[in-house]
Amino acid sequence: MSNFKIIKDKELDCNFVDFTNVDFKLESGYLLNNYRLAYKTFGTLNQNKTNAILICHALTGDQYVTGKNPITGRDGWWSRMVGPNKPIDTNKFFVICSNVLGGCAGSTGPKDKKDSNENIYGGEFPSITIKDIVDAQAKLLDALKIDQLFSVVGGSMGAMQALQWSIDFPNRIKSIIHIAGALKHSAQNIAFHEVGRQAIMNDSNWHKGNYSEEKTVPERGLSVARMIAHITYLSEDAMHRKFGRKLQSRDIISFGFDADFQIESYLRYQGRSFVERFDANSYLYLTRAMDYFDHSESYRKTLEFVNDSNNHINYLIISFTSDWLFPTRENKEIVKILNNLSKNVSFLEIETDKGHDSFLLDEPELDKVTKGFLESNYRKTNE
Amino acid sequence: MSNFKIIKDKELDCNFVDFTNVDFKLESGYLLNNYRLAYKTFGTLNQNKTNAILICHALTGDQYVTGKNPITGRDGWWSRMVGPNKPIDTNKFFVICSNVLGGCAGSTGPKDKKDSNENIYGGEFPSITIKDIVDAQAKLLDALKIDQLFSVVGGSMGAMQALQWSIDFPNRIKSIIHIAGALKHSAQNIAFHEVGRQAIMNDSNWHKGNYSEEKTVPERGLSVARMIAHITYLSEDAMHRKFGRKLQSRDIISFGFDADFQIESYLRYQGRSFVERFDANSYLYLTRAMDYFDHSESYRKTLEFVNDSNNHINYLIISFTSDWLFPTRENKEIVKILNNLSKNVSFLEIETDKGHDSFLLDEPELDKVTKGFLESNYRKTNE
Repeated sequence: MSNFKIIKDKELDCNFVDFTNVDFKLESGYLLNNYRLAYKTFGTLNQNKTNAILICHALTGDQYVTGKNPITGRDGWWSRMVGPNKPIDTNKFFVICSNVLGGCAGSTGPKDKKDSNENIYGGEFPSITIKDIVDAQAKLLDALKIDQLFSVVGGSMGAMQALQWSIDFPNRIKSIIHIAGALKHSAQNIAFHEVGRQAIMNDSNWHKGNYSEEKTVPERGLSVARMIAHITYLSEDAMHRKFGRKLQSRDIISFGFDADFQIESYLRYQGRSFVERFDANSYLYLTRAMDYFDHSESYRKTLEFVNDSNNHINYLIISFTSDWLFPTRENKEIVKILNNLSKNVSFLEIETDKGHDSFLLDEPELDKVTKGFLESNYRKTNE
Repeated sequence: MSNFKIIKDKELDCNFVDFTNVDFKLESGYLLNNYRLAYKTFGTLNQNKTNAILICHALTGDQYVTGKNPITGRDGWWSRMVGPNKPIDTNKFFVICSNVLGGCAGSTGPKDKKDSNENIYGGEFPSITIKDIVDAQAKLLDALKIDQLFSVVGGSMGAMQALQWSIDFPNRIKSIIHIAGALKHSAQNIAFHEVGRQAIMNDSNWHKGNYSEEKTVPERGLSVARMIAHITYLSEDAMHRKFGRKLQSRDIISFGFDADFQIESYLRYQGRSFVERFDANSYLYLTRAMDYFDHSESYRKTLEFVNDSNNHINYLIISFTSDWLFPTRENKEIVKILNNLSKNVSFLEIETDKGHDSFLLDEPELDKVTKGFLESNYRKTNE
């Protein structure tokens, strides 16, 4: 490790680590010379550096895992889970959360300058993978002088990162909590992502990704992409319970294309508000990274190959009954392989009708098992 | 009935019935003065006019149910099912299929002229409902001087029409075959339709529906809408079986936004080819008609109210195990009500992994039960 600088940003209430002249080789072969990661930490690193937890965010998340998010003015995306006396207790643990490489909340991504000539990457940003995202996180840990993580925790795309950590850096972690993920992105999931990408790329404001130069924003395409994705995050039951066929502020139907039904105005709102906080190109690159994720053939062999170096890892795999994006059966594929190889794996399927988004919502069982897993492992470590 | 004229069109290989000065009142209250329906017939009407079957097409179907479709150059959409010696046997039955009101294969819809001043309806086409579609079909039957249908058959949006026939014109039908439908369009189904509509209406070529005046076509929005819908027509298992994560004409991934996976290029193709044959405004109006469909509260009461007039109807309700758009449980709601009221109802759930589209695909059990139901009823009628 070399050539990095840590900068505190008061306005954005986070830190940046700037890497310069590092020749960071991406999985595609592309060499990233300079890049930065935006991150936040919560709690205190203990003297032996044994209490660090890395939280990996999902597709549209960011480093503001808890506390106030200064960009949106809202609570962090996992404030329910992370904080003093919360399931991931920042009185005990030192929590790190960084915006992923390719993201748009401060880490280097397509909306950033490619070089000192003020040129924006746009559509020329290199393709990135989950492996690249995790590699960049490992380099952040180097910069923070943390050799080993007590745990890596993440849901959805965050679960993909947690799994990738256990594959690429088994010696640098003691446990993972993998929530609502899979060994691979399924054909149906790729299909939903692809339609979202087509909505963005078909927006006449997209300009092959170089909308920044054209001073436009492919808002409408990004909004449609978000609406599609949002349907997949909810279960049909949750949608029915929340909205049913209830009409929106009208007693009778309009016989037109206004939002007659509550579900319509809800989705339109989701689309509109997403556009304010997310970059369309980041959406393209990160959905692609998820689509490329595939350890279905290699996982077992990889584990066998590095057998000795992962025996110490405690794995917790969690799924939700109503999640149709990363269903229980896909999470269980991981459990099955780990069990077959006699690894230390716990599995829990949580009964809920809230769909894939359950990991972000009020699920007391998720809180309880997360807290229990972390604290019992921590006790064992310090005995 | 009055003021109609039947025209044979050789080039389009179908008939038109033109209604003029008819003040056809739509459910919205709008008065349609002049309109036309495009239709085709197959087989021969018997002397007593007891062998007529109306086939109702789904969202993107047309009157070309069997034989060659002169517009696409392909076989009709249900050639497998309809024809001489096929399950719906045109040696025995007189089959009628008309393009729905609001459609774009010849019947009056948004792409047609509003008046003699050559103005195109576009976004000013009146909102239509499934009830309106069925009303227009009933007027076509009047023009054809057919009092009673031996059966009304349809899948998906066609099933909605079949059910509507049994509610609005119980005395004009002897049976219905209702395949993969529901009493109502669910919140999730409305959500998918709404995202498709947003994709179209967000296309800068849409021009509030008046793209014809602007000499543009909202191709990209329509293509995205079709892609979204297409995912919902397939089951996840069928998609996995067909495509899995197989790469498209490449050995390695491209690290870009080309169609790397077969499912991507398949969806892109579906989107592109749909644009050639379908009108974007028709898509808006017909998806809206489906969303408005809701007999969930009223069906039981309606049946009780007209109890005597529907006791003679034979109902066949069919669902598919892997259909997540109109799942078995929604079809069963109809069966339950009919059973509670001691109607003549048969129900079959067909085991298949092909999803909602099963009714259009090679499903021998569907063929068998359709043929059996029609022929046994026909024998009884003529005994």
